[in-house]
Amino acid sequence: MANFAIMGFGTVGSGVAEVLRMNGASIAEKLGEPLNLKYILDVRDLSATPYGDIAVKDFAVLENDPDLEVVVESIGGAKVALEFTRRALMAGKHVVTSNKELVASHGKELLAIAKEKNVNYLFEASVGGGIPVLRPLFQCLAGNQIEEVVGILNGTTNYILTRMVKGGVSFEDALKEAQAKGYAEQNPAADVEGLDAGRKICILSDLAWGKEVLPDRIHTQGISGLDLRDVALASEAGYRVKLLGRALRLEDGRQAAYVAPHLVPESCPVAAVDDVFNAIMIRGNAVGDVMFYGRGAGDLPTASAVMGDVMDALQHRAKRRDLGWSESADLADFGGLSMKWYLRGNFPAPEGSEVLSGGAVIAGPMTAAEAGALAERLGAEALLPVLE
Amino acid sequence: MANFAIMGFGTVGSGVAEVLRMNGASIAEKLGEPLNLKYILDVRDLSATPYGDIAVKDFAVLENDPDLEVVVESIGGAKVALEFTRRALMAGKHVVTSNKELVASHGKELLAIAKEKNVNYLFEASVGGGIPVLRPLFQCLAGNQIEEVVGILNGTTNYILTRMVKGGVSFEDALKEAQAKGYAEQNPAADVEGLDAGRKICILSDLAWGKEVLPDRIHTQGISGLDLRDVALASEAGYRVKLLGRALRLEDGRQAAYVAPHLVPESCPVAAVDDVFNAIMIRGNAVGDVMFYGRGAGDLPTASAVMGDVMDALQHRAKRRDLGWSESADLADFGGLSMKWYLRGNFPAPEGSEVLSGGAVIAGPMTAAEAGALAERLGAEALLPVLE
Repeated sequence: MANFAIMGFGTVGSGVAEVLRMNGASIAEKLGEPLNLKYILDVRDLSATPYGDIAVKDFAVLENDPDLEVVVESIGGAKVALEFTRRALMAGKHVVTSNKELVASHGKELLAIAKEKNVNYLFEASVGGGIPVLRPLFQCLAGNQIEEVVGILNGTTNYILTRMVKGGVSFEDALKEAQAKGYAEQNPAADVEGLDAGRKICILSDLAWGKEVLPDRIHTQGISGLDLRDVALASEAGYRVKLLGRALRLEDGRQAAYVAPHLVPESCPVAAVDDVFNAIMIRGNAVGDVMFYGRGAGDLPTASAVMGDVMDALQHRAKRRDLGWSESADLADFGGLSMKWYLRGNFPAPEGSEVLSGGAVIAGPMTAAEAGALAERLGAEALLPVLE
Repeated sequence: MANFAIMGFGTVGSGVAEVLRMNGASIAEKLGEPLNLKYILDVRDLSATPYGDIAVKDFAVLENDPDLEVVVESIGGAKVALEFTRRALMAGKHVVTSNKELVASHGKELLAIAKEKNVNYLFEASVGGGIPVLRPLFQCLAGNQIEEVVGILNGTTNYILTRMVKGGVSFEDALKEAQAKGYAEQNPAADVEGLDAGRKICILSDLAWGKEVLPDRIHTQGISGLDLRDVALASEAGYRVKLLGRALRLEDGRQAAYVAPHLVPESCPVAAVDDVFNAIMIRGNAVGDVMFYGRGAGDLPTASAVMGDVMDALQHRAKRRDLGWSESADLADFGGLSMKWYLRGNFPAPEGSEVLSGGAVIAGPMTAAEAGALAERLGAEALLPVLE
């Protein structure tokens, strides 16, 4: 029998318990031993739940139990979660998490502790919810040089954008709808300003090239400033506006990563990904483009990924997953990245640009810095990158 | 240093050598040791190629080399490939393959030998070419009960169907185009009659539920009988015609698997997958629907998956991947499967059916046997299942 614990009994933590309840028999069969939920650590009183008899409030109980092998960290944030993760790893427990903030900001340190202690620190659920994407990236595609990772990494903003594109609803109204449906939090800044997508593209970048990219080092632009006119003009011209996280390796060996709303051509499979769905496209020098698609959030989808990692940690007890990233990546500035740009305003179309309706054009390729300067000179009211 | 060999130096085999040439440095870094291509086994004379000095014609050289750890089987078919795979596993070598025919027909036996000899037999490349799908299925989604797997598993037929749908080209002409482009073989039966997709859906089914499903036991219908009129009428009504392999678990615990052209609603992400691309959708009881998309064939994409498996086999030297399937699945007959059906002909629309233009209707849900009887009674000229 293998014992595990859940720390933090919110959406994800309770989802993990539910997945074990639903699928415990088949999980035991695949593992070759029963998987037992031994503790749930939460500050709240769980005595009225079916889990009252395994609820604990003192982390030391988990830390000091030699029969506890795996700890699921679903506390969130990077304070208590960081402390407990460090201590659990130091105590020789495998740790599995969905906490993108913690992995993006402290993954390097935590993976180094895991290596030292010969345990696993796994976090498939931190990107794309239940969609298998990190393990395919570092394992199935290991024979490739990864060239680019780009994706719709945040379901809340994709829902809002879908409502703007298909419903002609303003950003403010679409946000209110998303909040009413429980897709957006009352303080939606982490989603709509692109911070959540930023953490995820950093984790993807860390794994793709093995070098740390911290969220506060990358250009992050959300969708709160998006004008419905641009969404409509882009649609007319055969593009969808999507908030993308993008990480790439430049020809000079440097890396780049950023988050911004893009015009995506309808022919690109990412363009058709609507509502709360996520999709991540990975380009390798052997495989070409592969795409992974599914629900990027929600209790059971996220718990599916967590449970997969719990099982993987147990299957790699003896020889841990060799996973980690090292020193800081050599990052190119966003301003130096070259691509095409959508501009709109009351100005004559720049030479060589593609003219859309409503005073909009697509110009370039040129660098972000050049595009910014051009937009300023022309007095453009909108400037958005175009995915090619 | 880890030594491997390639058996069969055709499209896939030479692709694997090329991927090693392209990415050898990063592969060595990830493995923690150089990966060395020690032998290429082929009946042809390779002395004029850059690989002349490692070419061998006698399998016993591989079999008897104690320093050879991994063998890539890219011979194809189920004769020589079967014998050499058996012998390589018996000799304690890990074997990696893209050979769907062999895995679908003899996987159970070969995995049992691998288990006995404590080596890996891996075949990610046998389904979906370079798309990571088997490992996500058996590993990342291990916490789920898999409910259904459905996908576009054959790039050749998807190219033909795309030309029929978008170009209004007849099946015969689209096939000729595909042959001219090198997508279809001169004898295209294995592709167009659905045999290739059938082998792949069997492998997916084997892994999803751990029980053997042999290709000759499943209903397999290809696209050679497809009428351009039905493709056009379906498009008008918001459907795309796609050749799908489909495997599902029924409520009574039995399984089903089959291959047939389906009407797929445009809102389903699989509908937008065109040309030679493949897409596989997996439904789990926790994760919901996830989809995997990319190039389902080609030298480098397929070699990408093979190389990922070679690396995985070496990383799981000490403790093999616990992979395999057991006794025959309890299969439901195709005739008993219930779904909606597209029918066309000169008959009054059956009660409760949805009327399309051109004498076509969508009726049901009813079983395949009932639909067949109805089509016969009405004298229908076309009968196709509809994916819901």
